[in-house]
Formats: sequence, structure tokens, C-alpha cells
Amino acid sequence: MVLGDVFVLWFVPAAAVVGILFALVQWYIVSGVSVGGEGKGNNGYLHVDEDGVSDAEVVAKCAEIQAAISEGAESFLATEYQYLLIFMGIFSVIIFVFLSSVGGFKWERVPCEYDTAQECPSTIAYAFFTTVAFILGALTSTLSGYLGMKIATYANARTTLEARRGVGRAFIVAFRSGSVMGFLLAANGLLVLFLTILVFKLFFKDDWVGLYEAITGYGLGGSAVALFGRVGGGIYTKAADVGADLVGKIEQNIPEDDPRNPAVIADNVGDNVGDIAGMGADLFGSFAESTCAALVVSSISSFGTDRNFVAMSFPLIISAAGIFVCLLTTLVATDLFVIKGVKQIEPTLKYQLVISTVLMTIAIFLVSWYALPDTFTINVVGHDPKVVKNWHIFLCVGSGLWAGLIIGFVTEYFTSNTYQPVQDVADACRTGAATNIIFGLALGYKSVIIPVFAIAAAIYLSFSLAAMYGIAVAALGMLSTLATGLAIDAYGPISDNAGGIAEMAGMSHEVRETTDALDAAGNTTAAIGKGFAIGSAALVSLALFGAYVSRAGIAVVDVIQPKEFVGLLVGAMLPYWFSAMTMKSVGKAALAMVEEVRRQFRTISGLMEGTAKPDYKRCVQISTDASIREMIPPGALVMLTPIIVGTLFGVETLAGLLAGALVSGVQIAISASNTGGAWDNAKKYIEAGRSEHAKTLGPKGSDAHKAAVIGDTVGDPLKDTSGPSLNILIKLMAVESLVFAPFFAANGGWLFRL
Amino acid sequence: MVLGDVFVLWFVPAAAVVGILFALVQWYIVSGVSVGGEGKGNNGYLHVDEDGVSDAEVVAKCAEIQAAISEGAESFLATEYQYLLIFMGIFSVIIFVFLSSVGGFKWERVPCEYDTAQECPSTIAYAFFTTVAFILGALTSTLSGYLGMKIATYANARTTLEARRGVGRAFIVAFRSGSVMGFLLAANGLLVLFLTILVFKLFFKDDWVGLYEAITGYGLGGSAVALFGRVGGGIYTKAADVGADLVGKIEQNIPEDDPRNPAVIADNVGDNVGDIAGMGADLFGSFAESTCAALVVSSISSFGTDRNFVAMSFPLIISAAGIFVCLLTTLVATDLFVIKGVKQIEPTLKYQLVISTVLMTIAIFLVSWYALPDTFTINVVGHDPKVVKNWHIFLCVGSGLWAGLIIGFVTEYFTSNTYQPVQDVADACRTGAATNIIFGLALGYKSVIIPVFAIAAAIYLSFSLAAMYGIAVAALGMLSTLATGLAIDAYGPISDNAGGIAEMAGMSHEVRETTDALDAAGNTTAAIGKGFAIGSAALVSLALFGAYVSRAGIAVVDVIQPKEFVGLLVGAMLPYWFSAMTMKSVGKAALAMVEEVRRQFRTISGLMEGTAKPDYKRCVQISTDASIREMIPPGALVMLTPIIVGTLFGVETLAGLLAGALVSGVQIAISASNTGGAWDNAKKYIEAGRSEHAKTLGPKGSDAHKAAVIGDTVGDPLKDTSGPSLNILIKLMAVESLVFAPFFAANGGWLFRL
Repeated sequence: MVLGDVFVLWFVPAAAVVGILFALVQWYIVSGVSVGGEGKGNNGYLHVDEDGVSDAEVVAKCAEIQAAISEGAESFLATEYQYLLIFMGIFSVIIFVFLSSVGGFKWERVPCEYDTAQECPSTIAYAFFTTVAFILGALTSTLSGYLGMKIATYANARTTLEARRGVGRAFIVAFRSGSVMGFLLAANGLLVLFLTILVFKLFFKDDWVGLYEAITGYGLGGSAVALFGRVGGGIYTKAADVGADLVGKIEQNIPEDDPRNPAVIADNVGDNVGDIAGMGADLFGSFAESTCAALVVSSISSFGTDRNFVAMSFPLIISAAGIFVCLLTTLVATDLFVIKGVKQIEPTLKYQLVISTVLMTIAIFLVSWYALPDTFTINVVGHDPKVVKNWHIFLCVGSGLWAGLIIGFVTEYFTSNTYQPVQDVADACRTGAATNIIFGLALGYKSVIIPVFAIAAAIYLSFSLAAMYGIAVAALGMLSTLATGLAIDAYGPISDNAGGIAEMAGMSHEVRETTDALDAAGNTTAAIGKGFAIGSAALVSLALFGAYVSRAGIAVVDVIQPKEFVGLLVGAMLPYWFSAMTMKSVGKAALAMVEEVRRQFRTISGLMEGTAKPDYKRCVQISTDASIREMIPPGALVMLTPIIVGTLFGVETLAGLLAGALVSGVQIAISASNTGGAWDNAKKYIEAGRSEHAKTLGPKGSDAHKAAVIGDTVGDPLKDTSGPSLNILIKLMAVESLVFAPFFAANGGWLFRL
Repeated sequence: MVLGDVFVLWFVPAAAVVGILFALVQWYIVSGVSVGGEGKGNNGYLHVDEDGVSDAEVVAKCAEIQAAISEGAESFLATEYQYLLIFMGIFSVIIFVFLSSVGGFKWERVPCEYDTAQECPSTIAYAFFTTVAFILGALTSTLSGYLGMKIATYANARTTLEARRGVGRAFIVAFRSGSVMGFLLAANGLLVLFLTILVFKLFFKDDWVGLYEAITGYGLGGSAVALFGRVGGGIYTKAADVGADLVGKIEQNIPEDDPRNPAVIADNVGDNVGDIAGMGADLFGSFAESTCAALVVSSISSFGTDRNFVAMSFPLIISAAGIFVCLLTTLVATDLFVIKGVKQIEPTLKYQLVISTVLMTIAIFLVSWYALPDTFTINVVGHDPKVVKNWHIFLCVGSGLWAGLIIGFVTEYFTSNTYQPVQDVADACRTGAATNIIFGLALGYKSVIIPVFAIAAAIYLSFSLAAMYGIAVAALGMLSTLATGLAIDAYGPISDNAGGIAEMAGMSHEVRETTDALDAAGNTTAAIGKGFAIGSAALVSLALFGAYVSRAGIAVVDVIQPKEFVGLLVGAMLPYWFSAMTMKSVGKAALAMVEEVRRQFRTISGLMEGTAKPDYKRCVQISTDASIREMIPPGALVMLTPIIVGTLFGVETLAGLLAGALVSGVQIAISASNTGGAWDNAKKYIEAGRSEHAKTLGPKGSDAHKAAVIGDTVGDPLKDTSGPSLNILIKLMAVESLVFAPFFAANGGWLFRL
């Protein structure tokens, strides 16, 4: 270890600032594509078109649609954030009151846990800082989601317009826009967290344990907002999607994304508020939580006791290094090897994962070598301290990183239509929707096997080498290439929207083929992104679980004890309860949308003829209202369960519950995401008809295609609502338990005391 | 406690003999219905018919179909049992070699564990007796399945014929036949187990620990056969069902159960080998395992050490008392209140559950009072012994019993079409198959909540009061009314077959309506049966898990240790892996059937015109071969996992794995069964069209009905293959671990030793 405190104080903020600047440069380049006079004019990316007048019309049309989508997304997020504000207010009070009550609401400073000779801040001050961290986390998460949405709605029409100039150009616009989001989120999250620590330090001084425990509020805030973002956005996007299809395609017999369909804008808005804003908030939450978990555990390690600032900042340095690695990786795709044809899209995105993983491995090695002491000890409640070497930590972080890559590849194998599994599902459409569904469900279940082994291997290695600190840094390892992961993930919905805009603006067949190819790759990258999200969520939750157990003073979580086992069993049930709620919500919200679309077709004369415009805003409003209303019960289930169980049944039952929810939720989340992705791409496989096999199943409108559409619709809520929300369920319950652990340890288990 | 050894030696076998005699009397009464000269002629149950000649023709036709079904079922079971014989041979060797190796293959007697001053049988002798018990359990399970099938194929045509004389008469025949199976299985299982104990006792003398540990082989044998019965039978029945429908209904446009369809007999055979033989073996396995678990735990309790034969036989006395209780309960339905109309079918079956539960509660109270010491202690490895009072045990057994009733009622609520949930699913068919599937999946997930809480409550109570002994007797409590449970469960497939025969024999519309009504109630009772099976499997597995942990010498299963947590995570994945295999198998086997049916329609001239007969046997053979081939990989997964994990990764990882598989498997099993049951009854709800709401969705052939048919087909493998097999997955892995525990404890964990 050779680095000094000064290094950390410069390196971490510098990385954040570089990340933000890089994002701004990318944004500037994307903005070079002109959409209805907004752009910078004829720069290198916008040529004068050959079609003359018709081109200007198309551009105007695209600009109009883009404005409508952007407006709808803003309107939804504004409403959602109003509710979030109320929620954050109430929950801030709960956090403050519950945590203050532990010390009996006293202002007096208390003896420090780590050294009773010294005085540490009062529990009321500690509760206050936790609450502030909670609010900061929630605000940063909100900002992350909002920025992601702004970027995506800014990029969608630009991608459509560039698609006229070739697949390579369109790809670059979509990918650059994705990286704007990736870098902004990663850098912003790191910067806010780092500054918060520095500010809190002024008050906490040498009480690192107290400081980092208060900082856990940041993770809780981030994930709480992510929960509502994922669930609300997920219900929104699928209600609009399913509702638009059920009336438009089935009753009125008009094509998908037809501008006469009143729900078509709501459908496109959904992609931005669900897949983009929701995913942004989700991965920000994972980043915040894994960092918090690592910090909490490190504060009770030997370098915590030694006040070794550099070693304690290891999680932040890793994330900072990740920003530089992702920056280099992005340049490979945007400047070094520019893609020429459709076939290069998927490999290019895949190489992004590989390159960033390889570079990051080197970075981790360097950081572990220079930032950590050669040997140190990790304290484990109820067990002997664990002696750890710095190269052990390199292995921990690396195992998480490479497990992420394996999950990415397996997900691609099971959801991309270039491989056997999706083709088998497409083939099953030959005998109807039922066999399609059976094969799709079986595919999802099967796709769980290798990711679970990969996660298990990373857990075993990290756990054995460095106890819960190992798990926390393994999670950080998986998330260290967050900027790249988010970039290729955001690329998906942007391409999806670009396709929708191309159809609505009535652009040529060729343009649509280009956007369809971008979109098919986007389905796979979206599934890969979900794979990362759930993989990292599993590691993060386990790290948080470990931190919770240590903070609640539990030495063992023995599942052959009644309290723990009952917790385990009920915990394993929660993901099912939650999925039942969210899936039914999508169904109900879709029916509300169906009513409104029917009403407009009935009452607005000239709508079908194209002489009158539908009331898009009303549909956006319906979808907004329904999703806001429907997100409350599942949200309450997740937010209240740890508080109720901890208070009534005590810390042991809650520990069992967290373990059960974790191991059960991982499986459902992975299988739901992959099943949905596979159905979607099986449908696209039949539609594209690129192989001999695919041609025997198609074309659009054939019986096999109809069966594939049914599978796709069933998969929608699985892959975009229930599945991805489950990540947050397991993370959020764990981080909430961690924040409230002192309260539960002091006052929990009322029911058993009677 | 006032009872002496003599009481046990008389009461238990007497109950078994009374149960068998009662079953024979019921069989005699059922045989009073004449089918083609086999019957006893004009007894009270067969009146001379008004239709004269046509009646004789119908009877002959029924007899012919029945013979074909019976022959097909025999042919499948004969093949299945050949493979089972090979499997049992190999596995017997494995058990014997592995267990003998623990003591180094020595013949010398060893010092007893409970008293080192005394000598106990050598490990090789102990391995031998375990192997013998395994073979006995496997044979009894095979016999149970076979008898069930014989009875069901004997009863199906008789139920059809009685349906001409009214719903009450048909119901009684189906119900009586079900109770023949229920009583034969319950009594036979008890008798064989009791006699085995007495014979083993001659050798083991005072070594009760060794004796009861050897007896666990009985549970392993029972469940191993049940696994292949469930999986093979499940694949068989659904391959035939789906295959017959895909060609017959879709390609050739002939109705369901049309005799021209070559797969129609295979389809009806499937009901008997899957639902009847599989379920019989499954519940026999649960009974055997929970008894074994209770016996093993009781042998290390204070009454084990005191050699209190009556107290140690408590599990057997409970089961014996259950036979008498069920006998009284059955008489209520068959003789006291004979049903008159369709509306009374479901209530009558439901009252069977309620009456048997209430009577059994009294019986449990008496047995606990008279067979157990007032106070005794249960030894818990690594903890202080638990002091238990006899009324504690009454509460334990009772909690299991009543949890079973709650599961039954909840299952009925979620799968019967008289309640809101199924009607909602039927209503979702209005907007197509996709919404039907979404609502059905959500229903299945939701239906897990209350059963899990009921199981959790029973576990918490029993666990707290009497540790693992409490869990084991709670499982016994749930299974104490086994004879009644099996009777109402077997009633379902018998009625289903009766309906099929009515259609094939071309009987009148009125008769079909009667059999349809019987069948709809049967769907619900089948779901209730599956609910009991999975509920009891959860309790049994936990009891076996506890016995395993104690036998492997593990004091705590701490899930915040790497080995245990990784086991937990991978264990929770296993049910998904298993389901992926079984669901894909059904798909593949169905396609093989489709090929054969197509071939027959193509090559047999006059088949469509009804002038030539199809080759039923060939289809039965195809289904048999496919299911035998396909049952091997999932079977191997379940049988090999504990051995591989225990040997390579050691007892702690295996403990985690068992806990993970248990808590995850319960959820999938319940949701799969209920989703499938709900889809089936949603379809029946639309077909029957009894309410105003149902009429707006129907009739047969409407778009909503087509959507409902797709849901029903998807549900088939869920409810009849994957779901019910998962019970056995969790039980079997637990009992196998228990049997091999000494080997794993001595030689396990190779990988970690390197």
C-alpha cells in the first residue's frame, strides 16, 4: 500500500467529473443530429438529404412525436415524484423517530462502541444523519431516473433519423445516448456519495462506524425510489402496451404503433419511464447499496480501527477506476471500430462487456495492490476475526466481475434468436400458443441454472476469503463496469422507441428494417442488463444481509430453529405474493386503458379516417393514474414487511425472511426476465424470417406468428414488471433491515415477548 | 399414560386389518354394478333398464373400453416396474456399499452409541437392514400404485353406467372406489411398516436407535418409487392428453375422446397411471417418511432411552386411529347422507374433510393422553434437551391436521369455479389467451400466501413445543386422515375417466352432463389432494431435515456461512431445474405422440370413416416409451444431487441445499397445481354456462372458450407433472440425505479437503 489520503481526495472526485464531462461530450455529439431546428445544423452527422421536401416533413413529424413522448414521460414522472415526495416525507419521519427511540430520544453524546473511553454522537444526531442520507439517496435516485428519461426521449427521434443514413450511424446515436445515461448516473452517484461522506465526516470526526452506518440511509433512499420507479414504470409501460394492442390490433384492426391509436404515445412513453428511468434508479440503488454495505463492513475491520482512510475508501476507488475503464471501452465502439452492418450490432455490444471486464480486471488488481494493506483483519460477529491479504480482495472483486460476464453470456444465449433455445420456442409456435408457453416457461426455468452456479461460486470464494466484506466488494466488482452496462442496456429502449417513431412517422420500409434490427439486439441487451441487475442484487442483498446480521448482533442464523425457519419459508413466499400483485396490476391497468381507447374510437369522429387526432394525453393520464394507484400495494408490501416482521417477530425471524426472499427471488427474477425476452425474440425471429426455418413459421399473421404474439404478451409483465422489480424487493428489504437493525435489536419481537 | 405394550401389539394390526376389510367390502359393493357379465347381476345397485337392447350394447361398449384402458395401464406399469426393478437393484447396492463403508466393511459388533458398555449390531448388518427396509418400502409403494390403478380402472366404467341412473348413484360408485384405494393404501402401508419393525426387533433387540435408523430405508424406498411414478406417470398422462388434442381436435377436427383418435385410450390410461398410481405412491411415501422421521427422533428421546414401547409407537397408533376415524367419516357419505343432486357433490366432499378433521382431533387427544408419558424430554443435538408435556404433542399433531384443512379450503377457493378467482380468470379469456395466462399465473402465485402461512404457523408451534419430534408428528397429523384424503382425491380421475367412457361409448347428453358435473368437482378435489400432498411434504421434509441434521452431527445450520448459504441458493434453484426438465419432457413426448397419431390417420384406411379401428396399443406404447425415457434425467437429478453434494461438498452444504429446495419447492408446487386447476375449471365454467356471466363467455368454440383451452393446455404439465413431482423432490432429497448421513458425516466433503 503506497497511496496517501490525498490520492483518494483527488482521484475519486476527478473520476466523477471526468465521467460527467465525457457524458456531456457524448450528448453534444448526439445533439448534432437536427430534429426540427433544435439541433446544431449541418455538422458531420447531418447531411443534406436527397429526398428534399419529404425529408423535412418526416423530420417535422419525428420532432412532433418526440415532443409528445417527452411530454408524456415528464407528466408521468412529475406525478410519480409527487407521490414519492409524500412517501419520502413520511418515511423520513419513520426513520428519524424509530432510530431516535433506540437511545430514548436523548441529545447527550454516548460512549463509542469501538472505544468506550471516547464519546460518540447521540443517537438522535445519528438518526438525523441517517435521515439526511436517506433523503439524499432518494433525490439522487430520482435525478438518475429523470436524467435517463430526458436523454432517452432526446435520443429516440435522432436514432430514427440517422437510421435513414445506415445502420452504423443509427447504432452510434443510440449507443452514444445510452452512454450519456451510463456515465451521468455512475459519476453522479459516486460524486454525491463521496461529498456526503466528506460532509458527514466534519460532524462524525473519528467515529467511522457511526458515519458509515448513517450512510446506509443513502442506499435505502436510492432503492426505495427505485422500487416505485420499477413497479410504477413497469405497470405503466405494460398497461399501455397491452391496452394499445388489445384494442388497436384486435378490435380496430390497425397496425402496431399506428398514430390513430390513442394509446400509442402512452406505449412509447412507457419504454422511457419503465425500462429507462426504472432501470437507472434500480442500478443506481445497487451501486449505492453495495458501496454502503462495503463501507459498513470495512468500518469494523482492522483498517477501520486503524483509521486508514485509503483502505476504507477502497469501494469508492474501485467505482472511480471503473469510470475510466468504461470510458476507454466506450471509445472502442464509438471511435475505434465503427460498425458497418446489421450482423455486427450484437457482437459489438458483446465485446463491450468483454473489453470492460478484461480492462477492469487489471484495474482491480492495481487498486487492490496500492490501496489496501498487505494483510488486514475483518471482524465477524460471534466468530474469530478473519485475516485477509490484499490479493484475496482482488479475487473477491474479480469473481463478482467475471460472474457478471458469465451471467451476461448465458442470458444472451437464452434470449437471442441466433441460438437454439429461442429457435426451439419459435418452433413450438407451430403447434400453437400452448406449446409456445410451455416451452418458454421451461426455457426460463432452465436459464436459471448457470447464473445461479456463477453467483454461488462468486459467493463461496468471496465469503471464504473475506467474509461479508468479500461479498460486498464482489457486488461492487459486478457493478464496477456500471457505466458500460447501463449504456448497452439503455440502448435497447432507445432503439425500441426509434422503431416506433419510424412507424408512426410513416418512414420507408428500409428504415424500419434498420430500426427492427437495432431493436432485436436491444431485446437481448435489455435481458443482459436485467441479468446484471439481478446478479448484482443477489450479491448486494447478501452483503447487506451480512451487515444487518452483524449490526443486529446475531451470531448465527440457524435455520433449524423455529423463528429462523418460519422466516425462511415465509420469505421465500414473498416474491410470489409480490409477483401476484404486480401481474394482476398490469392486467387491471391494461383493462382501464382498453376502456379509454374504446371510448375515443367511439366518440371522436374522423379518428379512424385520420382526419381527427386522438387525445393522446388522456391515455397518458389514464396509464399514469392506474400505475400510480397500482404501485402502492406492492410497494407497501416490500416497505412494510421488514418493519412489521422486525418489530413483531424480532431480528432472528427477519434474518430468516431476508435469506428466504433472497434465494427464492433470484430464481423467479431470472426466469421471468429470460422467459419474457425469449418470447419477444421468438416473435421477432418469425417476423424477420431470415433463415429457412424462420420462413416456414412466418410470415406475420400466420398461425405460428399469432401463437408467438400471445407468448410475447404474456412475457411483457414478466420481463418488464414483475421480474425486474424483484431485484429491488430483495435489496430493499435487506437495506431497510440494516438501517432499522438497532431499533429491532433494542425493541423487536413484541409478539414473542407476550 | 395407562396403555401397555399389549395394546400396541393388538391395536395397530387390528386397525390395519379392519381398514383392509372395509376396503374389500366397498369393493364388493362396487362390483355389484355389472359390466359385461363380470358383475353380480341384479343386486340393489343394478336395475333392469327401460331401454332394453340399446342398453346391453352400451354396457358391452363400456366393458370393451374399460378393458382397453385397463390393459394399457397394466402395460405401462409393467414397463415402468421393470425399470424400477433395475433401479432398485442398483440403488440397493449403493445403499449397502456406502453404509457398510462407514464401519470399514467389518462384521464385528460395535459399542452402542447410547451406551458404550453394550454392543450393537455391526455397521454391515445395519447397512443390510437399511437395504432390506428400502426394498420393502419400494415394493409396498409399487403395490400401492398398482392397486390404485386396478381399482380405478375397475370403477371408471361402473361409474359411467351408474350415471344413467342419476348423479347420486354415480357419485357413490366413484366415491366408494376412491375409498377402496384410500383404505387399502393406508392400512397396507401401516401393516407392512409395523411387521417390519417387529421382525427387525428380533435382530436389533434393545438397539432402538439402530432399528429406527435402519427403518428410514423404508421411507426412502417408498419415495424413490413415488418419484418415478409421479414423473413417469405425469409425463405419460400429459403427453397423451396434449398429443391427442393437438392432432384430433386441431388437425382432424374430431371431438375430444372420440374413439377414432388413436391416442384416446392412451389419454384415459394416463389418468390412471398419473393421477392415481402416482398420487398413491406419493402419499404412501409421505406417510412412510413422516412415520420414519418421528420414529428416528423418538428413539433418541427420553422414552426411547427408557425403552417405552407404547410411547415410541405413538406415530403408529395415530395412524391406526386415523383408519377408524376415516371409516366413520366414509360411512357418513355412503350411508348416512346420500346425495341427491349435482349441487351436493362439492359440499359432500368438503364435509368429508371437515368431519374427519373434527373426529381426528378427538382421537389425537385420546391417543396423546393415553399413549404418551405426562412429561418427557426430546434430545436436540448441540442444544439442551427439550422438556415436553403430552398435551404439547396433542397441539403439534392437531396443528398439522388443521393446517391441512386450511390448505384444503384455500385450494378449493382458488380452483373451484363457484368462487371469484376462477371466474376472474374465465373473464380474462374475453380479451384472449394472453390475459388468461397472465391472470392464471397471478392466481397461482396468490394462492401460495395462506397455505404458506398455515404451514409456517404449524411449524412454529410444533417446532417450539417439541423440536423436530413436533414437526414429525405435525406431518403425521396432516396425514392421519390419509384414507379420506386419498378417497376424495382418487374420486377425481375416476370421474374424469367415467366422462371419457361416456363420450366414447356414445351415451346420451344427460349422462355426459352428470359425468361432467362429477368431473368438475373432481378437478377441485384433485387440487385439494395436491395441496395436502405438498403441505404434508413440507412438514415431512422439515422433519427429515431435522433428523438428518441430528444424525449428521450438525449443531447449527448457519446460513451466514459460505457452505450453507451456497447450498441454500443452489437448493432453491433445483425445483426450477427439475421443472424445466419435466415441462420440456411433456412437450417432447407430446410431439412423439403427434407423429404417431398422424401416421395412423395417414396409413390406416377407413379410420376417419369409423370402418377401421385405430391401433390404440401402438399409442400406448409410444407414450410408455417416451415417458420412461424422459423420466430418467429428472429422476437422476433428484436421486444423485444429495449423494454428489454430500460426498463432494459435505454435510453443511447439503443441509443448506435441503433447506433451500424445501422453501423454494413448496411455493412452485402450490402455485403450479392451483394455476393448472384454475385454468381447467375456468374452461369448464365457460363450457357449462350455468350463470349469466358464464353464458356471455361461451359457448364451446367461442373466442373466449378457445383462449380458455390454451390456458388449460398450458396448465396440464404444471398441475399434473411438474407441480406434484416437486413434493417428492423435496421429500426424497431429505430422506436420502438422512439415510446416507452416516456416510457423509464420515467421508463427505472431499472437495473442501483438497
